[in-house]
Amino acid sequence: MLKIKESPWKNPEDRKQERALKQEAVLTTAARIFADRGYHRASLDLVAEALNVTKPTLYYYFKNKEAMLSACMSQGLEIIENQTLAMPADNRSSALDILSDYLEKYARFVMTDFGRCAILISDTELSEASKKSVRSMKSRIDHKIRSIIQSGVEDGTIISTNPKFTAAALAGAINSIAHWSYIDNTVSKESIISEYVELLLVGVVPRVTAHP
Amino acid sequence: MLKIKESPWKNPEDRKQERALKQEAVLTTAARIFADRGYHRASLDLVAEALNVTKPTLYYYFKNKEAMLSACMSQGLEIIENQTLAMPADNRSSALDILSDYLEKYARFVMTDFGRCAILISDTELSEASKKSVRSMKSRIDHKIRSIIQSGVEDGTIISTNPKFTAAALAGAINSIAHWSYIDNTVSKESIISEYVELLLVGVVPRVTAHP
Repeated sequence: MLKIKESPWKNPEDRKQERALKQEAVLTTAARIFADRGYHRASLDLVAEALNVTKPTLYYYFKNKEAMLSACMSQGLEIIENQTLAMPADNRSSALDILSDYLEKYARFVMTDFGRCAILISDTELSEASKKSVRSMKSRIDHKIRSIIQSGVEDGTIISTNPKFTAAALAGAINSIAHWSYIDNTVSKESIISEYVELLLVGVVPRVTAHP
Repeated sequence: MLKIKESPWKNPEDRKQERALKQEAVLTTAARIFADRGYHRASLDLVAEALNVTKPTLYYYFKNKEAMLSACMSQGLEIIENQTLAMPADNRSSALDILSDYLEKYARFVMTDFGRCAILISDTELSEASKKSVRSMKSRIDHKIRSIIQSGVEDGTIISTNPKFTAAALAGAINSIAHWSYIDNTVSKESIISEYVELLLVGVVPRVTAHP
């Protein structure tokens, strides 16, 4: 008789962890396919095929395609809000340093599948409830950037006659990186990030005391 | 007997002109509704309702919704390519003046219904043939902006280590204005335009010889 060392069934804790891992895999794949093809041309068949599973398997994790898109967008915006925009450890940094650090991290995020999905797919595709939640995340992120710019105006490291405009213009310029994937694949991501951040920061640095 | 001075039927020339006018009205209305609601939530019923006609009337002008979107996008990009980006009469202008003039006109365009439609709706919604044509228009516009920046590098009025990046970042920042309509209606269009253009131009003006 074959001696079974361990039960072939996983324990509940492992099963829970495995489910979370699989759900994450579905989400990452969906984000990439949504961003590459556009929401309406991205079918769940393609997501299933890329994951080597059947379509009904996907419904075990998300009730439908819209719920998948909503989860992709929320996850993307959560990364921005809770990781990218989280305060740096060093509180002695100037507002300009914080902004510079943020733009760099944000640009890096915009190049990921979650970033591209959050930016390239219109939130008008979402149900009213999801759209409301996604827009309020966007609004919190927007206000956070404005407040960094406002602090810079106060500590003298940033010039901006209107932090609301400045925040929207900076974010808009960085968002445009999400469209690059199909325009050009010959340039390194890091060089795109540094060129953008440099170009944009010059616009907010006081003219006389040049930033090193 | 009633004396008829003129035939109640229009002559062929007038009919042709009237058809063009009506087609234009369909397009303008469709662009606004696509931009406001997103492509998939914008129904042809809504377009017909806004124009006070029946849905079959619309099919007299465009064979389907996708053809309507394609015409909206092409019309928008044509305005950019043939009007906004047309060379100014004064050839003695510096490249920086030309760029400044272009950014201002482009920002103004981005606030129109055709502009918002071309920017907010993903070209992945289009058929392969229309997408190819729209992307080649976008690419020509992109190259035109790069060449203005390149001329500025040559005449010394613009700094850019990489005109390709600079063009994409500037266009991306201006495109972000298309999203403003739902964020804020309390600010004048002209003040948004001038704030954006000012912020962005600072980033490309040589540091020492400040632009007036």
